[in-house]
Amino acid sequence: MTVGIVGAGQLGRMVALAGYPLGQRFVFLDPAADACAGQIGPLINAPYDDEAALAELAQRTEVVTFEFENVPSHAVESLARQVLVYPLPDTLEIAQDRLHEKQLFGELGIATASYEAVDSLEELRTAADNLGYPALLKTRRLGYDGKGQSLLRGASDVEAVWNTLGGVPLILEAFVDFERELSLVAARSRDGTMACYPLSENEHRGGILRVSKSCHDVRFQAAGEAIAEAVMRRLDYVGVLAIEFFQSGEELIANEMAPRVHNSGHWTIEGAETSQFENHLRAILGLPLGSTAARGCAAMVNFVGRLPDIATVTALPHVHFHDYGKAPRAGRKVGHATIACTDPKHADEVLTRLVALSDACSRGELE
Amino acid sequence: MTVGIVGAGQLGRMVALAGYPLGQRFVFLDPAADACAGQIGPLINAPYDDEAALAELAQRTEVVTFEFENVPSHAVESLARQVLVYPLPDTLEIAQDRLHEKQLFGELGIATASYEAVDSLEELRTAADNLGYPALLKTRRLGYDGKGQSLLRGASDVEAVWNTLGGVPLILEAFVDFERELSLVAARSRDGTMACYPLSENEHRGGILRVSKSCHDVRFQAAGEAIAEAVMRRLDYVGVLAIEFFQSGEELIANEMAPRVHNSGHWTIEGAETSQFENHLRAILGLPLGSTAARGCAAMVNFVGRLPDIATVTALPHVHFHDYGKAPRAGRKVGHATIACTDPKHADEVLTRLVALSDACSRGELE
Repeated sequence: MTVGIVGAGQLGRMVALAGYPLGQRFVFLDPAADACAGQIGPLINAPYDDEAALAELAQRTEVVTFEFENVPSHAVESLARQVLVYPLPDTLEIAQDRLHEKQLFGELGIATASYEAVDSLEELRTAADNLGYPALLKTRRLGYDGKGQSLLRGASDVEAVWNTLGGVPLILEAFVDFERELSLVAARSRDGTMACYPLSENEHRGGILRVSKSCHDVRFQAAGEAIAEAVMRRLDYVGVLAIEFFQSGEELIANEMAPRVHNSGHWTIEGAETSQFENHLRAILGLPLGSTAARGCAAMVNFVGRLPDIATVTALPHVHFHDYGKAPRAGRKVGHATIACTDPKHADEVLTRLVALSDACSRGELE
Repeated sequence: MTVGIVGAGQLGRMVALAGYPLGQRFVFLDPAADACAGQIGPLINAPYDDEAALAELAQRTEVVTFEFENVPSHAVESLARQVLVYPLPDTLEIAQDRLHEKQLFGELGIATASYEAVDSLEELRTAADNLGYPALLKTRRLGYDGKGQSLLRGASDVEAVWNTLGGVPLILEAFVDFERELSLVAARSRDGTMACYPLSENEHRGGILRVSKSCHDVRFQAAGEAIAEAVMRRLDYVGVLAIEFFQSGEELIANEMAPRVHNSGHWTIEGAETSQFENHLRAILGLPLGSTAARGCAAMVNFVGRLPDIATVTALPHVHFHDYGKAPRAGRKVGHATIACTDPKHADEVLTRLVALSDACSRGELE
């Protein structure tokens, strides 16, 4: 079968690399002529809402999916009239908008930060009075990697933050005093079968995910899975979905969701029996899902800005290197490495070294 | 870096799939326009000894390797004058010829079947008298999957077998009464570092490999590794090498070697920490080799002729499916499946089911 993927970045690339062994072929759509998945499969180089390009994508494929959810809804709907599309367009529409996401969580009884929609400076003042400080003002749409959000520490920040973000639909969220960030990556197949990976424990730097560790924490696993199940069932979801949580005390507070394979699930390539990429494909192709069981301890470190030397990384025991084939640029995710082994102490030691390498890359200290 | 691969079948395809995460790019050379690796990377479609094509391959790549060793030596030497080539041309020359292979094993004190070179019917009669019956007459070059060989059960077979195979350089080998076939896949990097996988235990049907199981047999592992080490050191080998053995009593008798990734190492994709494909690349790129440790029990079953239904295979727990993207044809390897898990009993049960599926495919019983 030929699978269309909207977006040709590293996520699409890794989906295709998981799909070639399954005998699948791929066609990508991306506005960037040098999008890195274009190195490993045919790329239609056009804007996401280019009707001719969408028609070509639909014509060349039997099912279409997304590595990037912020595609105009009319483009998704146009695609869905021409070819099977998973996840469903309605799902994307909700996941594109932080307000709709929060409303969905609320309907399903899933805890979130307190929030208010904000469309004017006046509404921002009122919302900030209601929610208190600190609070986070975010664009409802198109935010990622910490972009499109600002912290309000007090009333004196309101006008400056409004001047930065105002003019598009916004949401103000009460600040959650969390102990750690967790995420759950789950897959749901066309027949409704579900499979959840072990939670990931995530650390960010400058708004960008830096480290994800597979987290065998029975306290939160069942709670996370129940939330994922409720969301996926409600949306008749097909594919991989990631939900990010704040852990605050004994509670999981849903922060946001991504209707696609997710950076915090990259450790599943070597650290789980079946990767999130393969299970996303199995789901949208209507195949049985593969086991999500972890293989020992796994952790992933992102390389942001530039890559370390491949020989340095591959010399580390039990480490797997992933170079996305992207040109270096400050703040850009260009690769990752995974440590997967059965010895937690060794995993921690290697993780420390990988984080040091990653930090050096982001500081631009390496050649 | 860009790696050239001579041959664009499933072996080249799996090398590239292992290499894309390492940030490598690939160009294939193959005389078949529909060679399956051409689905996942650029293909130069020309005969293996086409000088213009070899020049183009050399020009577009920084290092060249082989998924197919039976390339004319003048073509390999031409390549080696233009670009780095691993394994070295001399190695290929030896591995292409069963007589040279046996002589190398002999020089290194490695046990083989008794043999004699045969170039005429008269020599065949003499050799058969010397070696006794049964004996195997094989072409010295270009044999694979049981092709180019015939069994002599007695003196009355000599003339008929000569008429089938005669006219090219031949070798007559005494029949080895073996208990099982084992193979060792080993990697050696540019700096001489070596790593060996656990032995594989292999079963053939009709001369074609059907099943390989990772075999944790300490009795033979050290002996196999010592043999691989001697051969690789002697050849200044770079890359993955496979040596096939007969186990006869407590002895390993070397049968043949393949200077490339090998079908009996396919289980390493999911069943070892680093696959043979990644380690072949690490070796020829001068990178540190990755761990060859097995992850639990693994076994691989080839699909020959046609593939079973993907949904049937992926429904089996802990099973990974590999569809090479090839058209069905009797006797052709079109895919494989691997069972990898920690429970030997479960692995055996699933292996039995995979073998039944494989048998049905070869008999053409499936849709």
